Amino acid sequence: MSEQTKRISISHGGGGEDMRRLIAGEIQSRFDNEQMRDLGDAARLLLPGGAAAVAFTTDSYIIDPPFFPGADIGYLAVCGTVNDLAVSGATPRWLSCALILEEGLPLADLGRVLDSMARAAAEAGVEIVTGDTKVVPRGGADKIFINTAGVGELDNRVKIDIRSCRPGDALLVSGPVGSHGAAVMLARENYGIESELVSDVAPLVGQAAALKAACPSLRFMRDPTRGGLAGVLTEITEAAGVGIELEENLVPVLDSVRSICELLGFDPLYLANEGIMLAVVPPSGSERALEALSAAGAAAPTLIGRIVEDELRIINVRTEIGGQRILPPPGGELLPRIC
Amino acid sequence: MSEQTKRISISHGGGGEDMRRLIAGEIQSRFDNEQMRDLGDAARLLLPGGAAAVAFTTDSYIIDPPFFPGADIGYLAVCGTVNDLAVSGATPRWLSCALILEEGLPLADLGRVLDSMARAAAEAGVEIVTGDTKVVPRGGADKIFINTAGVGELDNRVKIDIRSCRPGDALLVSGPVGSHGAAVMLARENYGIESELVSDVAPLVGQAAALKAACPSLRFMRDPTRGGLAGVLTEITEAAGVGIELEENLVPVLDSVRSICELLGFDPLYLANEGIMLAVVPPSGSERALEALSAAGAAAPTLIGRIVEDELRIINVRTEIGGQRILPPPGGELLPRIC
Repeated sequence: MSEQTKRISISHGGGGEDMRRLIAGEIQSRFDNEQMRDLGDAARLLLPGGAAAVAFTTDSYIIDPPFFPGADIGYLAVCGTVNDLAVSGATPRWLSCALILEEGLPLADLGRVLDSMARAAAEAGVEIVTGDTKVVPRGGADKIFINTAGVGELDNRVKIDIRSCRPGDALLVSGPVGSHGAAVMLARENYGIESELVSDVAPLVGQAAALKAACPSLRFMRDPTRGGLAGVLTEITEAAGVGIELEENLVPVLDSVRSICELLGFDPLYLANEGIMLAVVPPSGSERALEALSAAGAAAPTLIGRIVEDELRIINVRTEIGGQRILPPPGGELLPRIC
Repeated sequence: MSEQTKRISISHGGGGEDMRRLIAGEIQSRFDNEQMRDLGDAARLLLPGGAAAVAFTTDSYIIDPPFFPGADIGYLAVCGTVNDLAVSGATPRWLSCALILEEGLPLADLGRVLDSMARAAAEAGVEIVTGDTKVVPRGGADKIFINTAGVGELDNRVKIDIRSCRPGDALLVSGPVGSHGAAVMLARENYGIESELVSDVAPLVGQAAALKAACPSLRFMRDPTRGGLAGVLTEITEAAGVGIELEENLVPVLDSVRSICELLGFDPLYLANEGIMLAVVPPSGSERALEALSAAGAAAPTLIGRIVEDELRIINVRTEIGGQRILPPPGGELLPRIC
């Protein structure tokens, strides 16, 4: 296809290779500054005189359907942005709320969504301090889109940096993977599957704070949303120039998620999560980190693998049946409207 | 209509009475804090220890068409948010950029929009430091929506507060009114009108800084976007409990805007602006303020009226032909997709 006729496709929003190429080629190339080159979950802003530093992040939520088992787009829009700040090492404090509403949206639905935002903000200890409301004509948008930007306080003593991950470091997850992606998929498509499964969406403020306090040498945290655990692991190998050994049988996955994945041919490692984190800690800190996560209420804090030296930056998975496979980066077609 | 069946209508996004009711009834009631009650263009965040204060704002841009005479949605999305910070008395520093793209959008169009964002950011002296990209299936959104949130540095010595406006104060505008609204309207509807008119969209950083420096007793600044000049004047009367005397023959309006308004039956006082500001200064400061605006490149700095004592909070317009009329608050049906 010629340059002139290239168009945006669904895969550009999926959290995989196409999205990375779009962002590098079209966005980072134009907005060239240190923060954008970093591509962390939040930018670090240093206020004049070095008096204070804040973290700043943004995320739009376009999830279809807006109401899904366990929560809704409002609860998700607060938790998602709060979590981006928390895993960046910041204390989330203030959020904005920008609504794009489709003409015809029942006011009662808007009310439910806003109630959920208020509840999530209270749980996460943040205030929603500024906002914007736009309405588009019927057919101009799908029901409701929400953008939340967030500002958090940064403690400059904490250095969370994906590039600091090094061979020997332990990989931890705080809870079972894939629950959000699987729950939304079930809610969206009419597969005829009955399930008790709910999204894992929840604020990670307490867990992130506990981990920072328990592990001063904490290397990195990230909530594996679009692209799932596989996406974050790929980012680590690329940014830090390392390989990864992942023990598949150690990765916590709920039975309900596992059976949905088997039925539909999905891999839980690629499904979105909205209430768990991946953390990288030096080998000596892994016990303390797991205890801290557990004390902070994490559902299933687990050591799932290690960083290894590997110039080829391969993620090597030891499978449950004792074999080995290479985990490829997330591709393009990744359920784009799960967040 | 019963509470259960009320729905979002276009007028909820128009910047008029319906929007104010929606925001007060559905949003402020749920996100109750001092910042939200204020409803300024930006929230003021005080960092711990009082070390620094920042302004924080958000705006989504859904303008149809995304390319219009004089600029495009990208240029607008940066200027609009920069201006919200500037008129709040802050020095705009950092912006986020969250894109919602419709499947099928030509990559070349996205490139043009991002080029405009980069150019506007350079002109306004801000950095775009964090972002998010989502894609919705064809029909799920109109081409491209952009949310920009912004963070600026606040100088705590500057107190800009709509409630501080008092009888005797002078009302100034920095340039001709209605150009953005009229230009977008022409670009959207096929009226068969030929015009050289372009949007006034531009960053107001320099003008706002000049005004702050020249007028330490500056009461209030605001860029009159949705709802136009009439909308901001209404807000002043309501927030400060005052009346306004407006001299219609002094309000600068381009001939091209005036003739479009006469042809189509619009009032330029209600049309959106994206590159002018309204400022309120004490009577003794108006000369200095006009000079400062002029030196900072304002197109037509003009004294257009005064604040008066009036418990009924009426905006009284002395018309061009010597009569008087009352300026009602913007209604609901106000070209919702001009910003």
